[in-house]
Amino acid sequence: MKQRKIIITGYGTVAKEFVELLDRKKEDFVEKYHTEFKVVGVIGSIGMIYEPDGLNLSVLYNLPKGSLGISQYASMKDLTVESPALKGDILLECTPTNLETGGPALSYIKQALESNMDIVSVSKGALVHSLPELLERANANGCQIKYSGATAAALPTIDIGEFSLAGSNILSIKGILNGTSNFILTSMSEGNITFEEALHLAQEKGIAEKNPDLDIKGLDSACKILLLANGLFHTKLTLEDIAIEGIEKITKADMQRAKINGCEWKLIASAKKQGDKLILQVKPEILTPENPLIHVKGTNKGILFETEEMGTICCVGGASHPKGAAAAALKDVINLIR
Amino acid sequence: MKQRKIIITGYGTVAKEFVELLDRKKEDFVEKYHTEFKVVGVIGSIGMIYEPDGLNLSVLYNLPKGSLGISQYASMKDLTVESPALKGDILLECTPTNLETGGPALSYIKQALESNMDIVSVSKGALVHSLPELLERANANGCQIKYSGATAAALPTIDIGEFSLAGSNILSIKGILNGTSNFILTSMSEGNITFEEALHLAQEKGIAEKNPDLDIKGLDSACKILLLANGLFHTKLTLEDIAIEGIEKITKADMQRAKINGCEWKLIASAKKQGDKLILQVKPEILTPENPLIHVKGTNKGILFETEEMGTICCVGGASHPKGAAAAALKDVINLIR
Repeated sequence: MKQRKIIITGYGTVAKEFVELLDRKKEDFVEKYHTEFKVVGVIGSIGMIYEPDGLNLSVLYNLPKGSLGISQYASMKDLTVESPALKGDILLECTPTNLETGGPALSYIKQALESNMDIVSVSKGALVHSLPELLERANANGCQIKYSGATAAALPTIDIGEFSLAGSNILSIKGILNGTSNFILTSMSEGNITFEEALHLAQEKGIAEKNPDLDIKGLDSACKILLLANGLFHTKLTLEDIAIEGIEKITKADMQRAKINGCEWKLIASAKKQGDKLILQVKPEILTPENPLIHVKGTNKGILFETEEMGTICCVGGASHPKGAAAAALKDVINLIR
Repeated sequence: MKQRKIIITGYGTVAKEFVELLDRKKEDFVEKYHTEFKVVGVIGSIGMIYEPDGLNLSVLYNLPKGSLGISQYASMKDLTVESPALKGDILLECTPTNLETGGPALSYIKQALESNMDIVSVSKGALVHSLPELLERANANGCQIKYSGATAAALPTIDIGEFSLAGSNILSIKGILNGTSNFILTSMSEGNITFEEALHLAQEKGIAEKNPDLDIKGLDSACKILLLANGLFHTKLTLEDIAIEGIEKITKADMQRAKINGCEWKLIASAKKQGDKLILQVKPEILTPENPLIHVKGTNKGILFETEEMGTICCVGGASHPKGAAAAALKDVINLIR
C-alpha cells in the first residue's frame, strides 16, 4: 500500500470541493489504486493546520472556506495554527492567481519542489509566470507538475496531449478555452444581440465578473494556451509571445454575416507549429460548419488537436463548476502515482 | 535509460505501420521518455524472426507484410526462422481477430503474461473472448494490458476513462464506435438514399466489406463497448450480455422523419450504470441536435462520457487508417512505461 500526503495551499471553493471529493472516495482509491491519499495540512493566510496522520476531511469540509475554516478546525481539534511548512508528498496549489508576480503560489511551488514534492496546481499565476523554470527544477528533482485545473479544468486538454497522443506529432492545438467569452458569443449569435447586451446578460447570470477584461480581452485564454504549449511542446514561451485579441469589437452585423453561411465567431486560442517555431495566438475566428468546435455553445469549452499520425481529435464539454475543477485536480493527484 | 523489448505477433498492415513509426521516432523517445524501445521479434504463421539486440526496422519496413516479409528478412540477415517464443517485455498482438475462440492471439497473450510481459493488443478477438480472465492474470503477475487499437484506435476512448476521468464516477458511456455503419447512416441522411444504396456506396468506396455483417449488424460496436465496459467498470460481461440491434432496418422514411426535427439516426453503443448493474446495448437511436455525437459524420467516430463530477465529455475524430491504429498501439506502448 502506497501512501501520499497532500498539503493544500489556499483553502477556497475548489480546495473545499477537493476535500469533499477525497473524503468520499478515499476508500475506493485504496482498492483501485492501492494508495492511501491523506490531506495532512492546509495553509491559508493565517497559517497552517497540520496533522501528520491526516486531517479529518469530513469535519474540515463542513467548516467555512478560507482562514475562518482553518481557525475553526484548529480550535475544534485543539491544534496550533503553525507557520506554513511543506511537509508532504504532493502540493495542491489553490491560492488566488497573480499573473504579474506568480504570487505566494510561486514560492510555495518552489519550496515544495525543493522538498521533492510533486505539484498539482489549480491556480494559473505561478505557472504562467514561470512554468518552464519550474518544470526544469521538477525534472532535476525527479518531481512532476500537473495542472489540469489551470487549463480548462474538467475538459481534458493536457491529458489528451500527454497520454492519448503520446508518441504522435501534434501539429496544432486550437481551443475554445474560456467559457465566459463563449457564452457571450453564443448569446450574440442566438439572441441577435450586441456585445454589450450579451456581456450584461452574462454578468446578470454571474457568468462574467464585474470587471470582465480577463475573459473578454482574451488574457485568460492566452494563459491557458501558454500553459498547454509550454507543457506539451516543451517551449519556453511567455505571455509576451502571444498575439492576443479579444471579442469586444465583434458587432451584431459581423455575427449575423457569419451566420448566413452557417459559420460562427468563436474566440480561438491556438498553438501551431510553423517550421521550427511554435506560433501562439488568441483571436476571434469565423469557424465553418465542418469545424467541430463550432458546436461548442454557451459556457462550454472545447479543444481540437491536429496530429500527423492520428488525424484530428476534438474534445468538448466538462463541467465548469468548482466541483469539476476539484475533480480535475483529483485526477491529477491520481495520475501522479502512475 | 530504460529498455523495452517488443515482440510482435501477426505482421499485417497495422504491425508494419507500427514498425515504420517506431523506426522514425525511436531516437525522440530516448530523449523524451528515457527509454529505448526495440522490436526484437516478429511472429507470423511461418515462425519467428528474432534478434536479441533488435531487428533492423527500416529494413523490415521495406519488405512485404506477412510471412513473405518475415522470410525475406530472415534470408537477408542470415537468420533461421525459429519456432515462436515470447522473449521480451511487451507483446504487441496484431493477429487476425477471431471472436469465437480468441484465435492464436489468446494463447500468445496467455504465454506472454506467464512470462510477465505487458500486452498491447490491436486485435479484438482474444480480449472479447476473455478480457476479465486475462486482466486477472495480468494483475496477479503485475502486468498491464492495453488495447486502444481494439477500441476505436486513434479516437481516445479507454484513455479518457482511465486517465482524464480518473477518480470520477462514470455514469454512462455512449459511442459511435463503428465508422462503416456511421458512413452508411450519414450517406442515407445526406443523400436521401436507401440503406441498400448507402451500403453499396460504402462497398464501392472500400469502406464496407463484401460481407458487411460485422459492421452493420452491430457486432463490431458491441465488441468495442464490451472491452470499454470490462476495462473501465471492472465488470465481467460477455457478448451475450449485450442486446444488439443493427442499422439494416432503418428506412429512407425513418431517416427523413428524424431530420425534420433536426435529429439524426446513429448507431449507439452504450454502457450505463443502473443501480448495481451495468447495462450494455447497441442499437440505432435518434439523436437530438443538442447531443454532441450528432455531429459525427461519415467514417468518423465519437464517444460521450457522462460523469457525476466532471459533467459530460465528448471526444470525436481520430484517423481511421492503419497508421492511426499503429499510432494508437504506439501510444499504449509508451503509456505502459509511465
